Amino acid sequence: MILLGIDPGLQVCGYALVKKELLRQTLIEAGVFRTDGKAALEERLNQIAEDIQTVLAAHKPDVVAVEQLYAHYKHPRTAILMGHARGVILQRAAQSGATVRSYSATRIKKSLTGNGHASKGQMQRAIQTVLDLPSVPEPPDVADAIAVALCCANERKPQYQSVK
Amino acid sequence: MILLGIDPGLQVCGYALVKKELLRQTLIEAGVFRTDGKAALEERLNQIAEDIQTVLAAHKPDVVAVEQLYAHYKHPRTAILMGHARGVILQRAAQSGATVRSYSATRIKKSLTGNGHASKGQMQRAIQTVLDLPSVPEPPDVADAIAVALCCANERKPQYQSVK
Repeated sequence: MILLGIDPGLQVCGYALVKKELLRQTLIEAGVFRTDGKAALEERLNQIAEDIQTVLAAHKPDVVAVEQLYAHYKHPRTAILMGHARGVILQRAAQSGATVRSYSATRIKKSLTGNGHASKGQMQRAIQTVLDLPSVPEPPDVADAIAVALCCANERKPQYQSVK
Repeated sequence: MILLGIDPGLQVCGYALVKKELLRQTLIEAGVFRTDGKAALEERLNQIAEDIQTVLAAHKPDVVAVEQLYAHYKHPRTAILMGHARGVILQRAAQSGATVRSYSATRIKKSLTGNGHASKGQMQRAIQTVLDLPSVPEPPDVADAIAVALCCANERKPQYQSVK
């Protein structure tokens, strides 16, 4: 089963493709999409749609797991803008036919470390250990995308089990 | 020139197609898209994408004008969810090749009535007068979509002038 994890953002979106097998998970590919901060909002959203579409078409993930946005009480405008980007990502994922899952940052941290308030360093070590990576994934958006994919892989609900 | 005004929402989106000519504006069509509140968020967003796509393909508007979201300090989660829907709408509008414009509720009210804090009744009368409609457009989402289209039509910047 192929899982696509996404850390959604308007400026930078992290993505990570993880192959989940019975006894292990393997990182297939990970990276970031960036948009031009000087471009119009609608053009940036269109760029995100095209980039996510390229990954979906190339890898045909079974599940797309997208991190939830934190409702910033101090920065509601920023949260709304990030919501625009996340909406485009969810729509494209649904259109692809993949199963779509959302996870809060707390749930992702708890899933990988047992602690919903794990530090960045703890999360990085967990990712390195599970995927047997030689170094810490960079930038942080990539690490976050890997984390959401691994959180999804850890779920034991029937719909996450491959039937292939 | 054909203008498509949109009052974005996750539950209900209002839309209105207005033909702008040199001396008058005519309402071509208006209505709402609704999504199933019991469906998953990604499916609702996909429904919105399909519905807006149908209107864009049928009418090929030159300009798509979308009302801005108010940053609800008391309801940040709701504002973020509405941002998801608005993001999908802006992306589809950009993909269609239309010029995309955003207007705040205050600017729309000021454009139609001269008062940025106009009442609902004042706005309804302004819409009825400009478009010579026999009755008040219902539901409110339709009236809001017409208002954003008329606000866009009122703009006098060169890019809004038809060259046809």
